[in-house]
Amino acid sequence: MNSSTHISQQYDNELEGLRSKVLSMGGLVEGHLSKVIETLSSCNFEGAEEVAVSDYKVNALEVEIDRICSTILLTRAPAASDLRLVLSIFKTINDLERIGDETEKIAKLVLNLRKPEAINIYYAGILTMAKTVRTMLRDSLDAFARTDSAAALKIAESDKEVDDGLDVVMRQLITFTIEDSKVISSVLDATLAARALERIGDHNRNICENIIYLVEGIDIRNTTPEQQ
Amino acid sequence: MNSSTHISQQYDNELEGLRSKVLSMGGLVEGHLSKVIETLSSCNFEGAEEVAVSDYKVNALEVEIDRICSTILLTRAPAASDLRLVLSIFKTINDLERIGDETEKIAKLVLNLRKPEAINIYYAGILTMAKTVRTMLRDSLDAFARTDSAAALKIAESDKEVDDGLDVVMRQLITFTIEDSKVISSVLDATLAARALERIGDHNRNICENIIYLVEGIDIRNTTPEQQ
Repeated sequence: MNSSTHISQQYDNELEGLRSKVLSMGGLVEGHLSKVIETLSSCNFEGAEEVAVSDYKVNALEVEIDRICSTILLTRAPAASDLRLVLSIFKTINDLERIGDETEKIAKLVLNLRKPEAINIYYAGILTMAKTVRTMLRDSLDAFARTDSAAALKIAESDKEVDDGLDVVMRQLITFTIEDSKVISSVLDATLAARALERIGDHNRNICENIIYLVEGIDIRNTTPEQQ
Repeated sequence: MNSSTHISQQYDNELEGLRSKVLSMGGLVEGHLSKVIETLSSCNFEGAEEVAVSDYKVNALEVEIDRICSTILLTRAPAASDLRLVLSIFKTINDLERIGDETEKIAKLVLNLRKPEAINIYYAGILTMAKTVRTMLRDSLDAFARTDSAAALKIAESDKEVDDGLDVVMRQLITFTIEDSKVISSVLDATLAARALERIGDHNRNICENIIYLVEGIDIRNTTPEQQ
Protein backbone atom coordinates (compact mmCIF):
# COMPACT_ATOMS: atom_id res chain seq x y z
CA MET A 1 0.00 0.00 0.00
CA ASN A 2 1.57 3.32 -0.96
CA SER A 3 1.54 6.30 1.37
CA SER A 4 -1.33 8.25 -0.27
CA THR A 5 -3.56 5.14 -0.29
CA HIS A 6 -2.68 4.72 3.35
CA ILE A 7 -3.66 8.32 4.20
CA SER A 8 -6.91 8.05 2.28
CA GLN A 9 -7.67 4.75 4.01
CA GLN A 10 -7.06 6.41 7.35
CA TYR A 11 -9.33 9.31 6.39
CA ASP A 12 -12.09 6.89 5.32
CA ASN A 13 -11.74 5.18 8.68
CA GLU A 14 -12.09 8.50 10.49
CA LEU A 15 -15.29 9.30 8.58
CA GLU A 16 -16.61 5.79 9.18
CA GLY A 17 -15.81 6.10 12.89
CA LEU A 18 -17.64 9.41 12.96
CA ARG A 19 -20.75 7.91 11.37
CA SER A 20 -20.81 5.02 13.80
CA LYS A 21 -20.43 7.36 16.77
CA VAL A 22 -23.51 9.27 15.56
CA LEU A 23 -25.40 5.99 15.42
CA SER A 24 -24.28 5.17 18.98
CA MET A 25 -25.50 8.57 20.15
CA GLY A 26 -28.80 8.01 18.33
CA GLY A 27 -29.09 4.58 19.94
CA LEU A 28 -28.54 6.07 23.40
CA VAL A 29 -31.23 8.72 22.83
CA GLU A 30 -33.62 6.12 21.44
CA GLY A 31 -32.91 3.99 24.52
CA HIS A 32 -33.89 6.89 26.79
CA LEU A 33 -37.11 7.38 24.86
CA SER A 34 -37.84 3.65 25.16
CA LYS A 35 -37.33 3.77 28.93
CA VAL A 36 -39.86 6.60 29.24
CA ILE A 37 -42.30 4.64 27.07
CA GLU A 38 -41.79 1.61 29.31
CA THR A 39 -42.60 3.73 32.37
CA LEU A 40 -45.75 5.05 30.68
CA SER A 41 -46.96 1.63 29.60
CA SER A 42 -46.07 -0.40 32.72
CA CYS A 43 -46.24 2.39 35.37
CA ASN A 44 -42.88 1.15 36.64
CA PHE A 45 -41.01 4.37 37.38
CA GLU A 46 -37.47 2.99 37.25
CA GLY A 47 -37.03 3.74 33.55
CA ALA A 48 -37.99 7.41 33.93
CA GLU A 49 -35.81 7.69 37.05
CA GLU A 50 -32.79 6.47 35.11
CA VAL A 51 -33.43 8.85 32.18
CA ALA A 52 -33.86 11.81 34.57
CA VAL A 53 -30.23 11.47 35.72
CA SER A 54 -28.51 10.23 32.53
CA ASP A 55 -28.87 13.06 30.03
CA TYR A 56 -25.24 14.11 30.63
CA LYS A 57 -24.18 10.96 28.75
CA VAL A 58 -25.93 12.26 25.62
CA ASN A 59 -24.30 15.68 26.08
CA ALA A 60 -20.87 14.10 26.53
CA LEU A 61 -21.26 12.18 23.26
CA GLU A 62 -22.33 15.37 21.48
CA VAL A 63 -19.26 17.24 22.72
CA GLU A 64 -17.01 14.33 21.70
CA ILE A 65 -18.46 14.05 18.17
CA ASP A 66 -18.39 17.81 17.85
CA ARG A 67 -14.67 17.73 18.57
CA ILE A 68 -14.05 14.98 16.01
CA CYS A 69 -15.92 17.05 13.38
CA SER A 70 -13.77 20.12 14.15
CA THR A 71 -10.57 18.08 13.97
CA ILE A 72 -11.53 16.60 10.61
CA LEU A 73 -12.39 20.05 9.26
CA LEU A 74 -9.06 21.37 10.51
CA THR A 75 -6.78 18.54 9.45
CA ARG A 76 -8.53 17.20 6.34
CA ALA A 77 -10.19 20.28 4.82
CA PRO A 78 -12.85 17.95 3.35
CA ALA A 79 -14.02 18.36 -0.24
CA ALA A 80 -17.69 18.73 -1.21
CA SER A 81 -19.40 15.45 -0.29
CA ASP A 82 -17.24 14.75 2.78
CA LEU A 83 -17.84 18.31 3.94
CA ARG A 84 -21.57 17.71 3.59
CA LEU A 85 -21.20 14.58 5.71
CA VAL A 86 -19.33 16.44 8.46
CA LEU A 87 -21.72 19.40 8.45
CA SER A 88 -24.83 17.25 8.41
CA ILE A 89 -23.43 15.28 11.36
CA PHE A 90 -22.58 18.53 13.12
CA LYS A 91 -26.27 19.47 12.90
CA THR A 92 -27.69 16.02 13.50
CA ILE A 93 -25.93 15.58 16.85
CA ASN A 94 -27.39 18.90 17.94
CA ASP A 95 -30.89 17.63 17.13
CA LEU A 96 -30.17 14.34 18.90
CA GLU A 97 -28.96 16.22 21.96
CA ARG A 98 -32.20 18.19 22.02
CA ILE A 99 -34.28 15.06 21.60
CA GLY A 100 -32.38 13.75 24.64
CA ASP A 101 -33.17 16.97 26.45
CA GLU A 102 -36.90 16.81 25.72
CA THR A 103 -36.96 13.13 26.70
CA GLU A 104 -35.35 14.03 30.03
CA LYS A 105 -38.06 16.69 30.55
CA ILE A 106 -40.81 14.15 29.87
CA ALA A 107 -39.19 11.74 32.35
CA LYS A 108 -39.20 14.44 35.03
CA LEU A 109 -42.83 15.38 34.32
CA VAL A 110 -43.88 11.74 34.61
CA LEU A 111 -41.98 11.47 37.91
CA ASN A 112 -43.79 14.59 39.14
CA LEU A 113 -47.05 12.69 38.84
CA ARG A 114 -45.83 9.27 39.95
CA LYS A 115 -49.31 7.76 40.37
CA PRO A 116 -49.99 4.70 38.21
CA GLU A 117 -53.74 5.38 37.98
CA ALA A 118 -53.08 9.01 36.93
CA ILE A 119 -50.50 7.91 34.34
CA ASN A 120 -53.09 5.60 32.80
CA ILE A 121 -55.58 8.46 32.51
CA TYR A 122 -53.56 11.52 31.53
CA TYR A 123 -50.73 9.89 29.60
CA ALA A 124 -52.70 7.46 27.41
CA GLY A 125 -52.63 9.75 24.36
CA ILE A 126 -49.07 10.76 25.13
CA LEU A 127 -47.97 7.11 25.12
CA THR A 128 -49.28 6.76 21.57
CA MET A 129 -47.49 9.97 20.51
CA ALA A 130 -44.26 8.74 22.16
CA LYS A 131 -44.41 5.44 20.26
CA THR A 132 -44.89 7.27 16.93
CA VAL A 133 -41.96 9.54 17.70
CA ARG A 134 -39.73 6.59 18.66
CA THR A 135 -40.52 4.84 15.36
CA MET A 136 -39.66 8.06 13.51
CA LEU A 137 -36.34 8.33 15.34
CA ARG A 138 -35.48 4.67 14.71
CA ASP A 139 -36.33 5.01 11.01
CA SER A 140 -34.32 8.25 10.75
CA LEU A 141 -31.22 6.62 12.23
CA ASP A 142 -31.72 3.79 9.79
CA ALA A 143 -32.03 6.22 6.87
CA PHE A 144 -28.85 7.94 8.08
CA ALA A 145 -26.98 4.62 8.24
CA ARG A 146 -28.12 3.73 4.71
CA THR A 147 -27.85 7.38 3.44
CA ASP A 148 -31.36 6.87 2.11
CA SER A 149 -32.81 10.27 1.20
CA ALA A 150 -36.11 8.88 -0.13
CA ALA A 151 -36.79 7.25 3.25
CA ALA A 152 -35.73 10.45 5.02
CA LEU A 153 -38.22 12.51 2.99
CA LYS A 154 -41.02 10.09 3.86
CA ILE A 155 -40.19 10.22 7.58
CA ALA A 156 -39.94 14.03 7.50
CA GLU A 157 -43.46 14.18 6.07
CA SER A 158 -44.81 11.85 8.75
CA ASP A 159 -44.03 14.53 11.37
CA LYS A 160 -47.52 15.82 10.58
CA GLU A 161 -48.93 12.77 12.41
CA VAL A 162 -47.19 13.92 15.59
CA ASP A 163 -48.59 17.44 15.23
CA ASP A 164 -52.08 16.00 14.72
CA GLY A 165 -51.51 13.75 17.74
CA LEU A 166 -50.77 16.82 19.84
CA ASP A 167 -54.13 18.37 18.88
CA VAL A 168 -55.99 15.21 19.88
CA VAL A 169 -54.14 14.94 23.20
CA MET A 170 -54.77 18.61 24.02
CA ARG A 171 -58.50 18.23 23.41
CA GLN A 172 -58.56 15.13 25.62
CA LEU A 173 -56.71 16.90 28.41
CA ILE A 174 -59.12 19.83 28.32
CA THR A 175 -62.10 17.54 28.87
CA PHE A 176 -60.46 16.12 32.04
CA THR A 177 -60.26 19.56 33.64
CA ILE A 178 -63.82 20.41 32.68
CA GLU A 179 -64.91 17.29 34.57
CA ASP A 180 -62.74 18.06 37.62
CA SER A 181 -60.78 21.30 38.03
CA LYS A 182 -58.60 19.81 40.82
CA VAL A 183 -56.62 17.82 38.25
CA ILE A 184 -55.29 20.96 36.55
CA SER A 185 -51.73 20.60 37.80
CA SER A 186 -51.40 17.09 36.36
CA VAL A 187 -53.05 18.23 33.13
CA LEU A 188 -50.57 21.10 32.71
CA ASP A 189 -47.66 18.68 33.21
CA ALA A 190 -49.17 16.32 30.65
CA THR A 191 -49.58 19.25 28.24
CA LEU A 192 -45.89 20.05 28.57
CA ALA A 193 -45.00 16.39 28.00
CA ALA A 194 -47.15 16.33 24.83
CA ARG A 195 -45.53 19.50 23.62
CA ALA A 196 -42.05 18.01 24.29
CA LEU A 197 -43.00 15.09 22.05
CA GLU A 198 -44.06 17.50 19.33
CA ARG A 199 -40.60 19.13 19.60
CA ILE A 200 -38.96 15.72 19.34
CA GLY A 201 -40.94 15.22 16.12
CA ASP A 202 -39.58 18.55 14.85
CA HIS A 203 -35.99 17.60 15.65
CA ASN A 204 -36.55 14.29 13.94
CA ARG A 205 -37.70 16.13 10.84
CA ASN A 206 -34.52 18.24 11.01
CA ILE A 207 -32.43 15.07 11.11
CA CYS A 208 -34.22 13.86 7.98
CA GLU A 209 -33.59 17.22 6.29
CA ASN A 210 -29.89 16.82 7.17
CA ILE A 211 -29.87 13.38 5.54
CA ILE A 212 -31.44 14.80 2.37
CA TYR A 213 -28.83 17.59 2.35
CA LEU A 214 -26.10 15.00 2.84
CA VAL A 215 -27.24 12.74 0.00
CA GLU A 216 -28.73 15.20 -2.50
CA GLY A 217 -26.87 18.40 -1.59
CA ILE A 218 -30.15 20.30 -1.47
CA ASP A 219 -31.77 22.22 1.34
CA ILE A 220 -35.51 21.56 1.70
CA ARG A 221 -36.22 23.91 4.61
CA ASN A 222 -39.07 26.43 4.32
CA THR A 223 -37.77 29.74 3.00
CA THR A 224 -40.71 31.31 1.12
CA PRO A 225 -44.03 32.81 2.24
CA GLU A 226 -45.87 30.05 0.33
CA GLN A 227 -44.25 27.36 2.50
CA GLN A 228 -45.04 29.28 5.70
CA MET B 1 -1.01 45.73 -2.40
CA ASN B 2 0.52 42.37 -3.35
CA SER B 3 -1.59 39.42 -4.35
CA SER B 4 -1.44 37.50 -1.05
CA THR B 5 -2.41 40.62 0.94
CA HIS B 6 -5.26 41.04 -1.52
CA ILE B 7 -6.47 37.48 -0.97
CA SER B 8 -6.20 37.76 2.80
CA GLN B 9 -8.07 41.09 2.69
CA GLN B 10 -10.81 39.41 0.66
CA TYR B 11 -10.98 36.55 3.16
CA ASP B 12 -11.24 39.00 6.07
CA ASN B 13 -14.07 40.73 4.24
CA GLU B 14 -15.87 37.42 3.78
CA LEU B 15 -15.63 36.67 7.50
CA GLU B 16 -16.70 40.20 8.37
CA GLY B 17 -19.66 39.92 5.98
CA LEU B 18 -20.60 36.64 7.63
CA ARG B 19 -20.55 38.18 11.10
CA SER B 20 -22.70 41.10 10.04
CA LYS B 21 -25.22 38.76 8.39
CA VAL B 22 -25.55 36.89 11.71
CA LEU B 23 -26.23 40.20 13.43
CA SER B 24 -28.90 41.04 10.82
CA MET B 25 -30.53 37.67 11.41
CA GLY B 26 -30.38 38.27 15.16
CA GLY B 27 -31.91 41.72 14.67
CA LEU B 28 -34.76 40.25 12.63
CA VAL B 29 -35.51 37.65 15.32
CA GLU B 30 -35.30 40.27 18.06
CA GLY B 31 -37.70 42.42 16.02
CA HIS B 32 -40.20 39.54 15.91
CA LEU B 33 -39.95 39.10 19.65
CA SER B 34 -40.49 42.84 20.13
CA LYS B 35 -43.63 42.74 17.98
CA VAL B 36 -45.08 39.97 20.12
CA ILE B 37 -44.20 41.94 23.26
CA GLU B 38 -45.94 44.97 21.76
CA THR B 39 -49.06 42.90 21.13
CA LEU B 40 -48.99 41.63 24.71
CA SER B 41 -48.52 45.06 26.25
CA SER B 42 -50.87 47.09 24.04
CA CYS B 43 -53.36 44.34 23.01
CA ASN B 44 -52.97 45.54 19.44
CA PHE B 45 -52.84 42.29 17.45
CA GLU B 46 -51.11 43.59 14.32
CA GLY B 47 -47.62 42.79 15.62
CA ALA B 48 -48.45 39.15 16.35
CA GLU B 49 -50.25 38.87 13.00
CA GLU B 50 -47.14 40.01 11.17
CA VAL B 51 -44.87 37.63 13.08
CA ALA B 52 -47.23 34.71 12.42
CA VAL B 53 -46.62 35.00 8.66
CA SER B 54 -42.99 36.18 8.56
CA ASP B 55 -40.96 33.33 10.02
CA TYR B 56 -39.88 32.23 6.52
CA LYS B 57 -37.66 35.34 6.39
CA VAL B 58 -35.68 34.05 9.37
CA ASN B 59 -35.42 30.61 7.75
CA ALA B 60 -34.25 32.14 4.47
CA LEU B 61 -31.47 34.02 6.27
CA GLU B 62 -30.42 30.85 8.07
CA VAL B 63 -30.18 28.93 4.79
CA GLU B 64 -28.20 31.80 3.20
CA ILE B 65 -25.69 32.07 6.07
CA ASP B 66 -25.44 28.29 6.19
CA ARG B 67 -24.41 28.32 2.55
CA ILE B 68 -21.81 31.05 3.13
CA CYS B 69 -20.32 28.98 5.98
CA SER B 70 -20.11 25.88 3.76
CA THR B 71 -18.47 27.86 0.96
CA ILE B 72 -15.88 29.34 3.31
CA LEU B 73 -15.10 25.88 4.72
CA LEU B 74 -14.76 24.52 1.20
CA THR B 75 -12.73 27.30 -0.40
CA ARG B 76 -10.72 28.65 2.55
CA ALA B 77 -10.15 25.58 4.74
CA PRO B 78 -10.00 27.94 7.75
CA ALA B 79 -7.33 27.50 10.43
CA ALA B 80 -8.12 27.20 14.14
CA SER B 81 -9.64 30.51 15.23
CA ASP B 82 -11.41 31.20 11.91
CA LEU B 83 -12.76 27.66 11.97
CA ARG B 84 -14.12 28.31 15.45
CA LEU B 85 -15.81 31.46 14.14
CA VAL B 86 -17.46 29.61 11.24
CA LEU B 87 -18.56 26.68 13.43
CA SER B 88 -19.90 28.88 16.19
CA ILE B 89 -21.87 30.85 13.59
CA PHE B 90 -23.10 27.61 12.08
CA LYS B 91 -24.59 26.72 15.48
CA THR B 92 -25.72 30.20 16.44
CA ILE B 93 -27.90 30.63 13.36
CA ASN B 94 -29.58 27.35 14.20
CA ASP B 95 -30.41 28.67 17.68
CA LEU B 96 -31.61 31.97 16.20
CA GLU B 97 -33.83 30.10 13.78
CA ARG B 98 -35.37 28.19 16.67
CA ILE B 99 -35.89 31.35 18.67
CA GLY B 100 -37.74 32.65 15.59
CA ASP B 101 -39.74 29.45 15.50
CA GLU B 102 -40.77 29.67 19.17
CA THR B 103 -41.62 33.36 18.74
CA GLU B 104 -43.89 32.45 15.83
CA LYS B 105 -45.60 29.85 18.04
CA ILE B 106 -46.20 32.42 20.77
CA ALA B 107 -47.64 34.83 18.19
CA LYS B 108 -50.08 32.15 17.01
CA LEU B 109 -51.10 31.27 20.58
CA VAL B 110 -51.78 34.95 21.34
CA LEU B 111 -53.87 35.20 18.16
CA ASN B 112 -55.82 32.12 19.25
CA LEU B 113 -56.99 34.06 22.26
CA ARG B 114 -57.36 37.48 20.64
CA LYS B 115 -59.28 39.03 23.57
CA PRO B 116 -57.61 42.10 25.12
CA GLU B 117 -59.10 41.47 28.57
CA ALA B 118 -57.94 37.82 28.49
CA ILE B 119 -54.44 38.86 27.34
CA ASN B 120 -54.20 41.19 30.32
CA ILE B 121 -55.09 38.37 32.70
CA TYR B 122 -53.36 35.25 31.36
CA TYR B 123 -50.35 36.84 29.70
CA ALA B 124 -49.22 39.28 32.41
CA GLY B 125 -46.49 36.97 33.75
CA ILE B 126 -45.61 35.90 30.23
CA LEU B 127 -45.06 39.54 29.22
CA THR B 128 -42.45 39.87 32.00
CA MET B 129 -40.76 36.64 30.89
CA ALA B 130 -40.77 37.83 27.27
CA LYS B 131 -39.08 41.09 28.21
CA THR B 132 -36.35 39.26 30.16
CA VAL B 133 -35.76 36.96 27.23
CA ARG B 134 -35.56 39.87 24.79
CA THR B 135 -32.94 41.61 26.94
CA MET B 136 -30.95 38.35 27.04
CA LEU B 137 -31.11 38.05 23.25
CA ARG B 138 -30.10 41.68 22.73
CA ASP B 139 -27.17 41.32 25.15
CA SER B 140 -26.10 38.05 23.52
CA LEU B 141 -25.99 39.64 20.06
CA ASP B 142 -23.99 42.46 21.56
CA ALA B 143 -21.56 40.02 23.18
CA PHE B 144 -21.24 38.25 19.83
CA ALA B 145 -20.49 41.53 18.04
CA ARG B 146 -17.84 42.41 20.63
CA THR B 147 -16.65 38.75 20.99
CA ASP B 148 -17.03 39.30 24.73
CA SER B 149 -16.92 35.92 26.46
CA ALA B 150 -17.20 37.35 30.01
CA ALA B 151 -20.50 39.02 29.07
CA ALA B 152 -21.64 35.81 27.37
CA LEU B 153 -20.99 33.79 30.53
CA LYS B 154 -23.00 36.25 32.61
CA ILE B 155 -25.95 36.15 30.20
CA ALA B 156 -25.81 32.34 30.04
CA GLU B 157 -26.11 32.21 33.83
CA SER B 158 -29.09 34.59 33.82
CA ASP B 159 -31.11 31.93 31.97
CA LYS B 160 -32.01 30.66 35.45
CA GLU B 161 -34.24 33.76 35.85
CA VAL B 162 -36.30 32.62 32.88
CA ASP B 163 -36.66 29.11 34.31
CA ASP B 164 -37.76 30.59 37.65
CA GLY B 165 -40.18 32.87 35.76
CA LEU B 166 -41.75 29.81 34.18
CA ASP B 167 -42.45 28.30 37.61
CA VAL B 168 -44.13 31.51 38.81
CA VAL B 169 -46.25 31.77 35.67
CA MET B 170 -47.32 28.14 35.88
CA ARG B 171 -48.44 28.54 39.49
CA GLN B 172 -50.41 31.68 38.54
CA LEU B 173 -52.09 29.91 35.63
CA ILE B 174 -53.14 27.02 37.85
CA THR B 175 -54.95 29.36 40.25
CA PHE B 176 -57.01 30.77 37.34
CA THR B 177 -58.40 27.36 36.47
CA ILE B 178 -59.16 26.56 40.09
CA GLU B 179 -61.30 29.71 40.16
CA ASP B 180 -63.04 28.94 36.87
CA SER B 181 -62.61 25.66 34.97
CA LYS B 182 -64.07 27.14 31.74
CA VAL B 183 -60.86 29.10 31.11
CA ILE B 184 -58.79 25.92 30.75
CA SER B 185 -58.29 26.22 27.00
CA SER B 186 -56.79 29.73 27.33
CA VAL B 187 -54.68 28.57 30.25
CA LEU B 188 -53.25 25.66 28.26
CA ASP B 189 -52.35 28.05 25.42
CA ALA B 190 -50.69 30.41 27.89
CA THR B 191 -48.77 27.45 29.37
CA LEU B 192 -47.42 26.59 25.93
CA ALA B 193 -46.44 30.24 25.37
CA ALA B 194 -44.58 30.31 28.71
CA ARG B 195 -42.82 27.10 27.85
CA ALA B 196 -41.84 28.54 24.42
CA LEU B 197 -40.21 31.46 26.25
CA GLU B 198 -38.30 29.03 28.44
CA ARG B 199 -37.00 27.36 25.25
CA ILE B 200 -35.98 30.74 23.87
CA GLY B 201 -33.98 31.25 27.07
CA ASP B 202 -32.29 27.86 26.47
CA HIS B 203 -31.38 28.77 22.90
CA ASN B 204 -30.03 32.07 24.13
CA ARG B 205 -27.84 30.22 26.58
CA ASN B 206 -26.59 28.06 23.68
CA ILE B 207 -25.68 31.21 21.74
CA CYS B 208 -23.67 32.41 24.74
CA GLU B 209 -21.92 29.04 24.95
CA ASN B 210 -21.07 29.38 21.26
CA ILE B 211 -19.54 32.81 21.93
CA ILE B 212 -17.44 31.38 24.77
CA TYR B 213 -16.28 28.55 22.49
CA LEU B 214 -15.46 31.09 19.79
CA VAL B 215 -13.40 33.34 22.06
CA GLU B 216 -11.87 30.89 24.53
CA GLY B 217 -11.89 27.68 22.50
CA ILE B 218 -13.52 25.82 25.40
CA ASP B 219 -16.78 23.94 25.60
CA ILE B 220 -18.78 24.68 28.77
CA ARG B 221 -21.72 22.36 28.13
CA ASN B 222 -22.79 19.87 30.82
CA THR B 223 -21.10 16.53 30.27
CA THR B 224 -20.77 15.00 33.75
CA PRO B 225 -23.28 13.57 36.24
CA GLU B 226 -22.35 16.33 38.72
CA GLN B 227 -23.53 19.00 36.28
CA GLN B 228 -26.80 17.13 35.58
